Amino acid sequence: MFEATKVGRSVSKSAFKEQHDDLRTQLLEAQRELRSAQIPVVVLIAGVEAAGKGEVVNRLNEWLDTRGVQTFAFWDLSDEERERPRYWRFWRSLPPRGELAILFGGWYQAPIEDRFHEHCDDSILAAELNRIVDFERMLTHDGCLVLKFWFHLSEKDQKRRLKKLSRDDRSRWKMLPEKAQFSEHYRRFERVAERVLRHTDRGIAPWYLIEAADERYRDLTVGKTLLQAMRSRIKRPLPMEPSPTADPLDLPETAEAQITLLDQLDLEQKLGRDFYKRELKRLQSEINELAWKAYKQQRSTVLVFEGVDAGGKGGAIRRITSAVDARLYRTIPIAAPTDEEKAHHYLWRFWRHIPRAGHMIIYDRSWYGRVLVERVEGFASDDEWRRAYTEINDFEEQLVEHGAILLKFWLHISQEEQLRRFEDRANTPYKQYKITDEDWRNREQWPRYKIAVNEMVARTSTESAPWTLIEGDNKPFARIKVLQTICDHLSAALTTDPK
Amino acid sequence: MFEATKVGRSVSKSAFKEQHDDLRTQLLEAQRELRSAQIPVVVLIAGVEAAGKGEVVNRLNEWLDTRGVQTFAFWDLSDEERERPRYWRFWRSLPPRGELAILFGGWYQAPIEDRFHEHCDDSILAAELNRIVDFERMLTHDGCLVLKFWFHLSEKDQKRRLKKLSRDDRSRWKMLPEKAQFSEHYRRFERVAERVLRHTDRGIAPWYLIEAADERYRDLTVGKTLLQAMRSRIKRPLPMEPSPTADPLDLPETAEAQITLLDQLDLEQKLGRDFYKRELKRLQSEINELAWKAYKQQRSTVLVFEGVDAGGKGGAIRRITSAVDARLYRTIPIAAPTDEEKAHHYLWRFWRHIPRAGHMIIYDRSWYGRVLVERVEGFASDDEWRRAYTEINDFEEQLVEHGAILLKFWLHISQEEQLRRFEDRANTPYKQYKITDEDWRNREQWPRYKIAVNEMVARTSTESAPWTLIEGDNKPFARIKVLQTICDHLSAALTTDPK
Repeated sequence: MFEATKVGRSVSKSAFKEQHDDLRTQLLEAQRELRSAQIPVVVLIAGVEAAGKGEVVNRLNEWLDTRGVQTFAFWDLSDEERERPRYWRFWRSLPPRGELAILFGGWYQAPIEDRFHEHCDDSILAAELNRIVDFERMLTHDGCLVLKFWFHLSEKDQKRRLKKLSRDDRSRWKMLPEKAQFSEHYRRFERVAERVLRHTDRGIAPWYLIEAADERYRDLTVGKTLLQAMRSRIKRPLPMEPSPTADPLDLPETAEAQITLLDQLDLEQKLGRDFYKRELKRLQSEINELAWKAYKQQRSTVLVFEGVDAGGKGGAIRRITSAVDARLYRTIPIAAPTDEEKAHHYLWRFWRHIPRAGHMIIYDRSWYGRVLVERVEGFASDDEWRRAYTEINDFEEQLVEHGAILLKFWLHISQEEQLRRFEDRANTPYKQYKITDEDWRNREQWPRYKIAVNEMVARTSTESAPWTLIEGDNKPFARIKVLQTICDHLSAALTTDPK
Repeated sequence: MFEATKVGRSVSKSAFKEQHDDLRTQLLEAQRELRSAQIPVVVLIAGVEAAGKGEVVNRLNEWLDTRGVQTFAFWDLSDEERERPRYWRFWRSLPPRGELAILFGGWYQAPIEDRFHEHCDDSILAAELNRIVDFERMLTHDGCLVLKFWFHLSEKDQKRRLKKLSRDDRSRWKMLPEKAQFSEHYRRFERVAERVLRHTDRGIAPWYLIEAADERYRDLTVGKTLLQAMRSRIKRPLPMEPSPTADPLDLPETAEAQITLLDQLDLEQKLGRDFYKRELKRLQSEINELAWKAYKQQRSTVLVFEGVDAGGKGGAIRRITSAVDARLYRTIPIAAPTDEEKAHHYLWRFWRHIPRAGHMIIYDRSWYGRVLVERVEGFASDDEWRRAYTEINDFEEQLVEHGAILLKFWLHISQEEQLRRFEDRANTPYKQYKITDEDWRNREQWPRYKIAVNEMVARTSTESAPWTLIEGDNKPFARIKVLQTICDHLSAALTTDPK
């Protein structure tokens, strides 16, 4: 596939000069338009050694208004990054709407290098490439313009350039391998690159192969192509995911056919006061011990709490946080997103808070808002919340792959119990802040929430990231079940996988 | 994820009776509408053992107008199927536009069983599931409605059903495993199924999980859901792939910057008459020997010929076919598609002709028409031909994975040479049938074809399925280069991989 980058294309000095000023003016113009259209742009720069990737990035920073451009390289991995799933660093580098990010290598660098140095085999590479395709699809569907440039040189040109580089004292190319070995390296790198590019060359985010031997041709082509892509993105509507081919299950119209998981819960279950106190004490001491054990084994814990209003999330969370050492956990209450968060993909704000290895993060509401409140209230479009199941599963898979223990709780109460609690809140001065008009409005959506919860559990409860439904009418019962579930899972995970 | 299929949903006899007749009438109505809207439907039936998948299929055949429904099972693999890439049998079972195909297990059966019986590991399963996602995406983008039903039973219900089945003499469930082993099997199957379903549960082709314990609930839910899906598909526009975020490279406006691969060809190359005759004889005998060797090693050969009009495809092909044993090869000239072919995805007609192991197939024009003539003449939409690169690469990958040796030739001549040949054809009576008004029209599109060819080679020439550009002005030179290339590749492939 690299034949077309070895044809000897070039641009004369005079032609470059002639086209340069005009291009620059137009790039700045397009950048302003993108900003007002609130379109984020990712420019990914990759290619063979010595193709001048750094020079291209410098050129782009010279041409563009740098106040809206951030450049990221990924060659030195920080501790912070090492202790989180690999994509954390890419999420950190995604531009807010209206701005550009220029990424050196980006998510392609590690897969290509790992395969080239034979740290992984073809099937692992293939899995990695599929993750990339999904990731780029997700960015594109969210409105981002993803541009991938690959810079290529013929073997002869690469050798010539590396020789020149090797005369530079700061170069790591002090010694070139001899001819036979060089040729073999060149061809092996091309084979890996071919596989990677071919697999990730999709209509939604195509690769641009650029012949890099002539610098003027190279830079002018990047600039013009970037300009063209920005312009056509401004004109075109947001790319859309194909609409789902079908709706949810259409159930027979009888009560016995329409029951959900939530109808199955036995909300009458209760615990006596003394038993509750004893159990609470035992489990709280156990959970603290387990949190320390997790810390020593560098396993992070992610706890997600969702549930109906007044379902008892806060109370259950407090029973955990009052037990675990404060250095080990953090609670993240999810309210309306900030401006900065709104300027990114909806998962971005959850990626931000991913715990470092060994820590516990407790989400009071979470990314599941997308398929619960946003679905029911119509804040997310049909396409958006349907797509979210896959996006959420991918996100959680990455957490689990990186060693996180992930548990999700749905706290459920009956409509009657909710009414009692609402009225209690309204009548108790120090609880009044907890009840709003919105809570009463949400109550009317009860049947639609039930359907959404049922589908959420069906589509996202997995062996490695299970949902636990908590019968919440009796608070002691609910709290003990939450604590017991956490202790069970933590001790199973920490015993079976000691480090 | 299977919790929601164990809640005990049911439908009473009377409720079933009440809703049954109406549903059936509406299904027939929807089927008629789908036929006139020319929408193909794939209904995939999968799930745990003894969930009554066969009963569901019988019910659907009872409810629908069977003249537009075909049912396929994939449990007994024919010789014909074994000797071709695995997806050949699925392509064979795809319905033409306006009809339904009901597939037992379909492309899910082998991955689930192979993983359950530990014939493959998780990474191979993941690769398989990604192929499925791409395949279903392709079908959906082509306008097909893909419905996937998964039937599930609780462990208790499954055991009860299997016991009942085991009383039937024809059942393969004569002996149930004892309790502990049964439980372990049940859970292991659920784990594999969960992984498969979760990964392939995409917005474009979601899974419908159906509780199968109560037969009336099960059948009514399938019927109603199928009806709902057909109806909403009729109302909705064709699902579309997100538009590409960018156009082709925008090259600097100078001649040296715009040269293509084709400009690089040295069309002046010639061979002397005597040398040509000698070489032709030698290579023809070699290619026949290699064809027999390939047959013995059960490796099939796929040769693709594309090129400009009057580029010499026919002549080059005849030099091969006059040498190889007629039992070993078949030539497929690709002209306008038949009605039946038009009623399927454009790749369907190429899947039809895939050779059995050991045979040689020569395509005179091919699937590349999509990104050549259909692109240039506007027969395919922008989205369609851009998508085609990925689809073609996937298709060829499957051929190569299954052991095919795949070579692609572009026969190129200069515009002047073409003019000479056109005039010769027009003036020679027995050659007049070879020249049409269309040829003259195509000639005017020369610059656009050059761009299309350049992009085609860049995006689809790969190590395992390379393009060879043939300098065609001198016919002897072109023919020898074609034959030599084939012999080189065949002997390399057959020597390194003897069987």
